[in-house]
Amino acid sequence: MNFIEQLNWRYATKRMVADKAVPQEKVNTIVEAFRLSASSYGLQPYNLLIIEDKELLKQIQPLAFNQPQIVETSTLLVLAVWDKATQERIDAFFNLIASERGIPVEALAGYKAMVEGRVNGADEASVFNWMARQAYIALGTGLAAAAIEEVDATPMEGFNPDALDELLGLSAKGLKSVVIVPLGYRDEANDPLANAKKVRKSTEDFVVSL
Amino acid sequence: MNFIEQLNWRYATKRMVADKAVPQEKVNTIVEAFRLSASSYGLQPYNLLIIEDKELLKQIQPLAFNQPQIVETSTLLVLAVWDKATQERIDAFFNLIASERGIPVEALAGYKAMVEGRVNGADEASVFNWMARQAYIALGTGLAAAAIEEVDATPMEGFNPDALDELLGLSAKGLKSVVIVPLGYRDEANDPLANAKKVRKSTEDFVVSL
Repeated sequence: MNFIEQLNWRYATKRMVADKAVPQEKVNTIVEAFRLSASSYGLQPYNLLIIEDKELLKQIQPLAFNQPQIVETSTLLVLAVWDKATQERIDAFFNLIASERGIPVEALAGYKAMVEGRVNGADEASVFNWMARQAYIALGTGLAAAAIEEVDATPMEGFNPDALDELLGLSAKGLKSVVIVPLGYRDEANDPLANAKKVRKSTEDFVVSL
Repeated sequence: MNFIEQLNWRYATKRMVADKAVPQEKVNTIVEAFRLSASSYGLQPYNLLIIEDKELLKQIQPLAFNQPQIVETSTLLVLAVWDKATQERIDAFFNLIASERGIPVEALAGYKAMVEGRVNGADEASVFNWMARQAYIALGTGLAAAAIEEVDATPMEGFNPDALDELLGLSAKGLKSVVIVPLGYRDEANDPLANAKKVRKSTEDFVVSL
């Protein structure tokens, strides 16, 4: 399949074959796609958690409207955004660039001032929304990788983020969960959507003419 | 190149070879990837514009901090989000599903109530932010397609959205631009970042351990 065929193949799987594990190599590729995603300034104001512990998955399920994929999956990804763009986090980002590129951090002063201007020039809620948007680029990139690997992936916003953050100890790490993504394999016998026609706006309706 | 190599190859190109056009077939594939992207409920609360008119690109450039790629590109994509999730738009979405799947729209009543609950249960600004996040999944999907096609693509938030919306008549269409993406080919001689090392958090720093 080419990429367009893979995108047509994927859908938000409602039932996954219980305990049919995604091979480690494929999980690694999908995680790597999240990590390599574009983000504004390259800041990556988000992290990923990989949850495979069966008992923990059982505890998460009631926080997500008891959706069955949460316990059918062998691998649940949790995408979490920085709660705040602290100076410490921005400093760490620029120290990383300087170190990776073998240049003094002072050479990045103009670039750093731009990022600081962006995050200090708006209120906390709007900066959080901006950081969350960046995480969603990574979500799109990771979902693309899953489709290419022919792994089903169901992005879910339908869960209680505060309860999940408490269960996973994310607040203490300065993170807020925004999306969870069980990985697995569609259970065609039990998922009524497995063979439903994919619905998207037509190209004529999607692309706006001036 | 496999997908991970393609993601490593891509970067936010700062200078593109002027007027080196992206072949129509590749533009179509990238647009199709935006169109096929996942979004919450499959709602696709966004549209895409394709701008190729040279005079119009010149008018857009000063609205985007005079970034050179705006006039070097042959194809500028504008990703625009619904200003409001109106009942008319939701009705059109469910009529489309019913028509595509050959079922009565009444059979979708429960699903429709969920979407209406989501968009009517929060204030307009937070619904807009939620819709914008969906657009950013499409952005990630489209950037993935560009990388696969070995087309450079530079997502830009640095522009004046109100001025652009006025220039393009988007407000009258109930749309708000959120990201613009020139497509093209890196100008290695003039882009100091063309050969800079790609910097991303290490996997150890990106994946949070519990």
